[in-house]
Amino acid sequence: MGKKYKTHYQIPFYESDVNHHVKLPHLLSVALQIASDQSVGLGLGDERLFQDYNLVWVVSEHEVTIKRLPRFNEVVEIETEPISYNRYFCYRKFRIYDDKGEKIVDIFSTFVLMDYDTRKVHDVPEDLIAPYESEKIRKILRGPKYRPLENASSTLYHVRYFDLDINGHVNNSRYLEWMYDVLDFEFLKNHVPKKINLKYVKEVQYGHDINSHLEQEGLLTKHEIMSNGGINAQAITEWESIQ
Amino acid sequence: MGKKYKTHYQIPFYESDVNHHVKLPHLLSVALQIASDQSVGLGLGDERLFQDYNLVWVVSEHEVTIKRLPRFNEVVEIETEPISYNRYFCYRKFRIYDDKGEKIVDIFSTFVLMDYDTRKVHDVPEDLIAPYESEKIRKILRGPKYRPLENASSTLYHVRYFDLDINGHVNNSRYLEWMYDVLDFEFLKNHVPKKINLKYVKEVQYGHDINSHLEQEGLLTKHEIMSNGGINAQAITEWESIQ
Repeated sequence: MGKKYKTHYQIPFYESDVNHHVKLPHLLSVALQIASDQSVGLGLGDERLFQDYNLVWVVSEHEVTIKRLPRFNEVVEIETEPISYNRYFCYRKFRIYDDKGEKIVDIFSTFVLMDYDTRKVHDVPEDLIAPYESEKIRKILRGPKYRPLENASSTLYHVRYFDLDINGHVNNSRYLEWMYDVLDFEFLKNHVPKKINLKYVKEVQYGHDINSHLEQEGLLTKHEIMSNGGINAQAITEWESIQ
Repeated sequence: MGKKYKTHYQIPFYESDVNHHVKLPHLLSVALQIASDQSVGLGLGDERLFQDYNLVWVVSEHEVTIKRLPRFNEVVEIETEPISYNRYFCYRKFRIYDDKGEKIVDIFSTFVLMDYDTRKVHDVPEDLIAPYESEKIRKILRGPKYRPLENASSTLYHVRYFDLDINGHVNNSRYLEWMYDVLDFEFLKNHVPKKINLKYVKEVQYGHDINSHLEQEGLLTKHEIMSNGGINAQAITEWESIQ
């Protein structure tokens, strides 16, 4: 059990979709921001991490379980807890509660520390992870197997200027935007994700176009973001009908 | 002088650009959210407006004057003040201050009330506007003349699912994204807007592609967003070099 951190968040108009739900890519962005806020509070913000260790946090995987999505204007409580870590991976939970204290979304995320110069994954330094009070484990917790898509449709997207972060890479939230944008509008209006597994494989950089691949079987969709012949991100989503 | 309302806002990571500045489309979204928060506080939120009057607020024009842009992680104070109104138009200022109390951004925005069914501009009802304590004027305050672009480059954009608002229209912030995305990456990295005039002419709807037209003369850029042969939005931006 790690040190918990929580904050309230009100879903803004400009991040609400046609179903009056929060836009899911935004929810993931807010979660990451809250994890970062916790680190700042522990004196381990991104600047310190960069200056003292030459390291940056990179999210490698999310598992999102949705009972219901927060709605426009709703004030939710978002709690995060760094659960455990092993040599290379740090595991963190996010829990989203409504104003009755009912949990409506669970996010389980995997992070790695990347060396800024070599762009390679770095061992988790013990002194850096200690303040989070998360459990040291030996086991590597893995997400699902993402098999290569074989009969996928493919849609081309151009990476845009405002897709980029401070560091010149495409913001994490854009991958999910590309993945869901290829779905049929009527499907998106009438369905809501129940479970999402999302894996970031390789950062997309500016100047590269990407292809968003989709395989859909009823309420199950499988996604790949590809560029230069390689996989950048993969996802599997289970959907349910909006009543 | 109208009733002021202000709040603090911290620039999140996921809305910061490669220059560590807030992404400008996001700043406009946040400003509109704060105007909306003021209305809610006065008992005149969007729901009441819709139920009691069948009206919705629509922003028609922005003039943004930038001394410097808020930076990643910076906490700014955003103040809004409904200044004045005439038969059809309501004028509102936004002022952004840094933590030393220095004003760094000014936004002057024009709003109209649209009838939800007819989609036409409606007279400003006196009982609705009174709580804002803004001045009634006869004069119509106009932005600059936007002449049709003659030798513009044109870039096609597909309207995406996540571009849409609750109401199924493209969110206001996307127009500026399309406008700036056609600028050269090196230009965007080395310049920052000093003054922006932006006019919304006609809403873009889902299923329509748009063209982002650009005419650039040194530090002056002129923009048009077009679809179906008509103009949806126009802008003029003066830029300056980043030192």
